[in-house]
Amino acid sequence: MQRRTKIYEGKAKILYETDNPDLLIQHFKDEATAFDAKKRGIIEQKGIYNNRISSVLFEYLEQHGVRTHFVEQLSDREMLTKRLEIIKIEVVVRNISAGSLSKRLGLEEGNHLREPILEFFYKDDALGDPLINDDHIRLLDLATPQEMRAIRKRALLVNGLLREFLDERNLILVDFKLEFGRHHGELLLGDEITPDGCRLWDKQTLDKMDKDRFRRDLGKVEEAYQEVYRRICGDAV
Amino acid sequence: MQRRTKIYEGKAKILYETDNPDLLIQHFKDEATAFDAKKRGIIEQKGIYNNRISSVLFEYLEQHGVRTHFVEQLSDREMLTKRLEIIKIEVVVRNISAGSLSKRLGLEEGNHLREPILEFFYKDDALGDPLINDDHIRLLDLATPQEMRAIRKRALLVNGLLREFLDERNLILVDFKLEFGRHHGELLLGDEITPDGCRLWDKQTLDKMDKDRFRRDLGKVEEAYQEVYRRICGDAV
Repeated sequence: MQRRTKIYEGKAKILYETDNPDLLIQHFKDEATAFDAKKRGIIEQKGIYNNRISSVLFEYLEQHGVRTHFVEQLSDREMLTKRLEIIKIEVVVRNISAGSLSKRLGLEEGNHLREPILEFFYKDDALGDPLINDDHIRLLDLATPQEMRAIRKRALLVNGLLREFLDERNLILVDFKLEFGRHHGELLLGDEITPDGCRLWDKQTLDKMDKDRFRRDLGKVEEAYQEVYRRICGDAV
Repeated sequence: MQRRTKIYEGKAKILYETDNPDLLIQHFKDEATAFDAKKRGIIEQKGIYNNRISSVLFEYLEQHGVRTHFVEQLSDREMLTKRLEIIKIEVVVRNISAGSLSKRLGLEEGNHLREPILEFFYKDDALGDPLINDDHIRLLDLATPQEMRAIRKRALLVNGLLREFLDERNLILVDFKLEFGRHHGELLLGDEITPDGCRLWDKQTLDKMDKDRFRRDLGKVEEAYQEVYRRICGDAV
């Protein structure tokens, strides 16, 4: 599969067209940003870890009935995906209070929530990805009510599947971000599932093993990504 | 009815207990604040206008089947109300884009929304009254799902009634804030309905006739409150 025109370059990924109009190549970079890109840096090898972690998790989800944009891993940093018309909503699922939820509601970090919490954010860098509700989504025509029902259900299913998978690998899924899109009208899980967009804590030590190490300057950032990669992908680097 | 212990003093109102444990006196002040109380000032006579405006609007709503905490107007600045266990949610209904909705979603002020938008904010000064969704409300136990269904329905009904009432008085109801509470288990509309918590525009000129004149230093603040009072209450000051 040949890379053609670059159609998007974001903080952590580049998308290229291919010879097949239905397929894209998603290239994973080492760049990291935080706090609306006010903080920038490099996490060595992150692109390689994230590509592999995402490939393994998408395959696992597909095997359990979740339709995703994943087709196959092409190389260290490249993944072949179905082309999506992206739904401009970041879907966040939370199992434990942390990050912006703690800040918004004045909750201590680390409280187990009685049931998973869903949040929707408007994917708009200029606006700082604000929290939105269903009325806002309808107003902005971001997704139909039918799509939103499917997204809620799908996000909770993915949460259940990932929690179990990660628990077996001694990782607690604190929270994570999902994005969805349409491929010939079908709703598919898109983007990536990696320590860039998930909070993962070690089950025994509760050590943070995700982008919070970069955000909060906790050190050993590469090591955390590598360890998550090791636990999820089960092979040496 | 005799004022007893002061039980609450807020930005614009004071609540007193009375001889009857079920009833409170709500006293309206001239003080005004904006931007999380970073801006403070006095709007002369505001308390008098707001008490009368609120009394008239609560009576109108009661006549149209909306249960409120209003009992009767006692004096220029005092209203007798049923005692409420306040639900810590600010309910905002919007018909036209303005204020924080415009800012959040990047919409120009003044767009007519296809249908009314509901927003819920967590009443917590220290947190800056953040936007919340139904999952947050459940997590914080602010209201039951049954209460939330009733609140949505009630808020939209109040919107319809107020729009019609205000339209006949040459005022456009752009958006407004409601608060609800429980009185012996019954859900009642509480707080006040005044130009402090409503955006009201003149139907012909689209002049702002509400607290935005104070927030944005537009001048003629007292005059706007007085004119809204005149149109709604129909008598001279």
